[in-house]
Amino acid sequence: MEALEQKILTEGQVLPGNILKVGSFLNQQIDTPFTLELGKEIANRFRTDGVTKILTIESSGIALSFAAAVYLGVPIVFAKKSEAANVSGRVLTAPIHSYTHGNDYTAVLPADYLDSRDKVLLVDDFLATGEALNGLLALAAQAGAEVVGCAIAIEKGFQKGGDALREKGVRVESLAIIESMGPDSLTFRR
Amino acid sequence: MEALEQKILTEGQVLPGNILKVGSFLNQQIDTPFTLELGKEIANRFRTDGVTKILTIESSGIALSFAAAVYLGVPIVFAKKSEAANVSGRVLTAPIHSYTHGNDYTAVLPADYLDSRDKVLLVDDFLATGEALNGLLALAAQAGAEVVGCAIAIEKGFQKGGDALREKGVRVESLAIIESMGPDSLTFRR
Repeated sequence: MEALEQKILTEGQVLPGNILKVGSFLNQQIDTPFTLELGKEIANRFRTDGVTKILTIESSGIALSFAAAVYLGVPIVFAKKSEAANVSGRVLTAPIHSYTHGNDYTAVLPADYLDSRDKVLLVDDFLATGEALNGLLALAAQAGAEVVGCAIAIEKGFQKGGDALREKGVRVESLAIIESMGPDSLTFRR
Repeated sequence: MEALEQKILTEGQVLPGNILKVGSFLNQQIDTPFTLELGKEIANRFRTDGVTKILTIESSGIALSFAAAVYLGVPIVFAKKSEAANVSGRVLTAPIHSYTHGNDYTAVLPADYLDSRDKVLLVDDFLATGEALNGLLALAAQAGAEVVGCAIAIEKGFQKGGDALREKGVRVESLAIIESMGPDSLTFRR
C-alpha cells in the first residue's frame, strides 16, 4: 500500500536491534484518518470471506483492528497479555515469546468470545518472527474457529515469520512488507 | 445515554467486589457499530472545544478513544502501563494505583506525543475511584497541555472519583453513571 510505504519512509525510525519505530502514527500515537484508510484496505481484501469477528492482541493492534471492523461491520475481540502462565476461568490461552521485549507471556481470551461458528480475521500492527500471530492462531484453534487469514500493517519480510505462515497455507495480507532495513536505507518487497 | 444504559442492563454482569463486567461489548469484545455511536456522542459533547488530541491509557480505552477521534478528526495517543517505576528516554510518567487489580503501576507516555500546544480530551471506558484519570491529568500537566475535559463510557457514581474531579473543576462527561449496583439491582443517576 503506497500511502503506508510513504508514511514509513517519512516518519519511521530504524533503531538498533531491527526495531522500526512508527509510534508517531501507527501504534502509540495513532493518526486516526490514516488508520481508517488502512482499515478500509484490510476490509476490501477480506470483503468476500464472511468474516464474523476480528481477533487481535493488546495493545497496539486494537486501533487498527477497530478501523478494519468499522468497514467489515463486525465486532473485535482482543487477547490480553498475562505474565502468569495459569489463568482461572473459562479461558483460552497460548504462550507467546516477545521478540521486541525478550520476555515470555501468555495470551488469554475468555472462551465466551470466540467459538466454532466464527470465521475470524487476525489483525496486528507488526509481523516479524510471527510469535504473536502463532499465539492468536492457537487461540482460534482452541475455540474451533475458522481463520480466514491475517491482516498486518507492517511485515518485516527479512524476519521470515510471514513467509513461514504462508508456507503453512495461512493467508497473510501485509499492507507493507519491508525487505531490508538499516540506519540509512529501507527497501520494500514489491 | 439511553442506549448505553439499556446495553448495561441487558449485557452487564455485576461481580463481587463492585466489578461491573461489560467485556461482551465495551472493553474486551468490542461491539464496533455501538462503540462508534458512543464515540459520536462524545464528539458531539466536545465539538466546540477545539480538541487537538485524545489521550487514554492502554488497553480498554483505546477502541472508545479511536471511535471518538473518528468524529473529532484528531489523533489519539495512549499511555502504556509499566511495572517499572523508572523508564528511560524522554517520557512523561505518573504513578497509578489500580483499584480493580489491587496493584500499582506507572503510566508512561513519550514526551514527543503531547505538548503545550495541545488541547487534550481524556477518554476511558470506566471511571470509579479516578486513579487512572488522575494519572492522565498528571501526564497532561507535565506536558503543559490544556485538558478540555474527560469523557467516560461508564462512571461508577458511588465510588466518587468523578464527583471529586468535578469538585476540582474538571469537566467530566460520562455517558452512563451508575448510582448503585448489587447482584440483583442497578440504578442510574439521572
